Amino acid sequence: MAMDGYRGFLGLLVSALLVGFLSVIFTLIWVLHYRGGLGWDGSSLEFNWHPVLVVTGFVFIQGIAIIVYRLPWTWKCSKLLMKSIHAGLNTVAAILAIISLVAAFDFHNTLQIPNMYSLHSWVGLIVVILYMLQLLLGFSVFLLPFAPLSLRAFLMPIHVYSGLFIFGTVIATVLMGVTEKLIFSLQNPAYSTLPPEGIFTNTLGLLVLLFGGLIFWIVTRPQWKRPKEPNSILLQPNRSNPEGVEGSMAINFGNVDKSDSDLNNEAAARKRNITVDEAGQRSTM
Amino acid sequence: MAMDGYRGFLGLLVSALLVGFLSVIFTLIWVLHYRGGLGWDGSSLEFNWHPVLVVTGFVFIQGIAIIVYRLPWTWKCSKLLMKSIHAGLNTVAAILAIISLVAAFDFHNTLQIPNMYSLHSWVGLIVVILYMLQLLLGFSVFLLPFAPLSLRAFLMPIHVYSGLFIFGTVIATVLMGVTEKLIFSLQNPAYSTLPPEGIFTNTLGLLVLLFGGLIFWIVTRPQWKRPKEPNSILLQPNRSNPEGVEGSMAINFGNVDKSDSDLNNEAAARKRNITVDEAGQRSTM
Repeated sequence: MAMDGYRGFLGLLVSALLVGFLSVIFTLIWVLHYRGGLGWDGSSLEFNWHPVLVVTGFVFIQGIAIIVYRLPWTWKCSKLLMKSIHAGLNTVAAILAIISLVAAFDFHNTLQIPNMYSLHSWVGLIVVILYMLQLLLGFSVFLLPFAPLSLRAFLMPIHVYSGLFIFGTVIATVLMGVTEKLIFSLQNPAYSTLPPEGIFTNTLGLLVLLFGGLIFWIVTRPQWKRPKEPNSILLQPNRSNPEGVEGSMAINFGNVDKSDSDLNNEAAARKRNITVDEAGQRSTM
Repeated sequence: MAMDGYRGFLGLLVSALLVGFLSVIFTLIWVLHYRGGLGWDGSSLEFNWHPVLVVTGFVFIQGIAIIVYRLPWTWKCSKLLMKSIHAGLNTVAAILAIISLVAAFDFHNTLQIPNMYSLHSWVGLIVVILYMLQLLLGFSVFLLPFAPLSLRAFLMPIHVYSGLFIFGTVIATVLMGVTEKLIFSLQNPAYSTLPPEGIFTNTLGLLVLLFGGLIFWIVTRPQWKRPKEPNSILLQPNRSNPEGVEGSMAINFGNVDKSDSDLNNEAAARKRNITVDEAGQRSTM
């Protein structure tokens, strides 16, 4: 990565971390200062864990998990280690998401508020289920050493797309959740009079949206992608004829990161020299 | 495009058109059957134009505008014609979005409901303003023949990213709007009892989300991109050395579609033979 690109990356990364961190802080201030604090007693204090855990895990940690391969100082680490960190962060996010659902259902059940009627709850439950499937698929195909390269190559663009679709849908679900909660909770003074809590929590919504925008920008810059492993280049068909590769891509249904092959050859991967190859052969999304 | 990829593209395109069309139909059924119909009298019938115009213009038409370069049967058309169609569709969407705002504000003002207090209204207004700026920038830089190639090259990845960020944010804003409207309007029976209108309109929300997902999938498949103009290849530095190009990309801050150069040479563009080149050099997002 050229120095210019590196500084641009660092600037974006620091911005994303800052906005993500601020989102978590804003959520904490919201529930602690405006919504009575946290508890685990079936009351609204238990519900308050719902936004805290979602913004911390499902938004912030998932966002970091998405861009973890982009950190240039990790490019000397093995791909297996980076995959483990990616999977680990997503697992933590999934656990926090599940606990956040328990908090919401517990609160509803205690106060006999119906569950699963709102669009927020529908999209939210769907996206949690998709996230679990994505985690299971990613673990069994890309982390465990059993899946053949052809299957990994076929599934990689789907995995990348699904991950970003899930992340974007989580952001949208958070915005719906904030909308719901402010309409229900802000009664006196009403949300429509735009009291301080309304302004504050709308701003939280904007921060979460901005965080999503920054993660999407970082992850879709092809020049900020982790360079492919050198041994994967040996595995490419038509290496001497780059034009031939794209021809085959149309049939292969997508761009493919063949660097998964380094799972079979961690030692060779470690002594990589960063070889520049066709960025387009690696899936940007 | 190989026959296999072409059939995959057609399947996805037909699905997207179907889901987008269904979204519009669902919105019409919602306002006509459940919400009393359409009118322009400051009443809730005038408000009902808001979801109809947003889903028709800001969702469906904008979605089509995003993928219009992907239609293989347009690849023999000039790039200028396709840009005009892209700009034209986005202009229609922008006009419908503006009228939809007028409908919402008119309704609020007539009934003395406050404006601009909800997260939906904040994000919605921001995204309409961003859309106008994007339209203005796209028109003046990419459609008018005055901007130098270097400026186009610099702005193209930003234009592509902004367009997709705006589109995704519009989808999120629609989901917030549906949430708000159902909470406010469904009182007897309440939204929480999940009456038929609740199920129906939640389903509309899912359709809009699915439409967004399909458009994102179609637009981010590198093998479905419009091939670059042959004269643009002549303009590429280091054509004989594809590896050298990515090296320069990091400095150039993004992937670039240099086919904008065909503006200066429409005639040459028309007799293009579809040359396969480095897909990665063209911005996927």
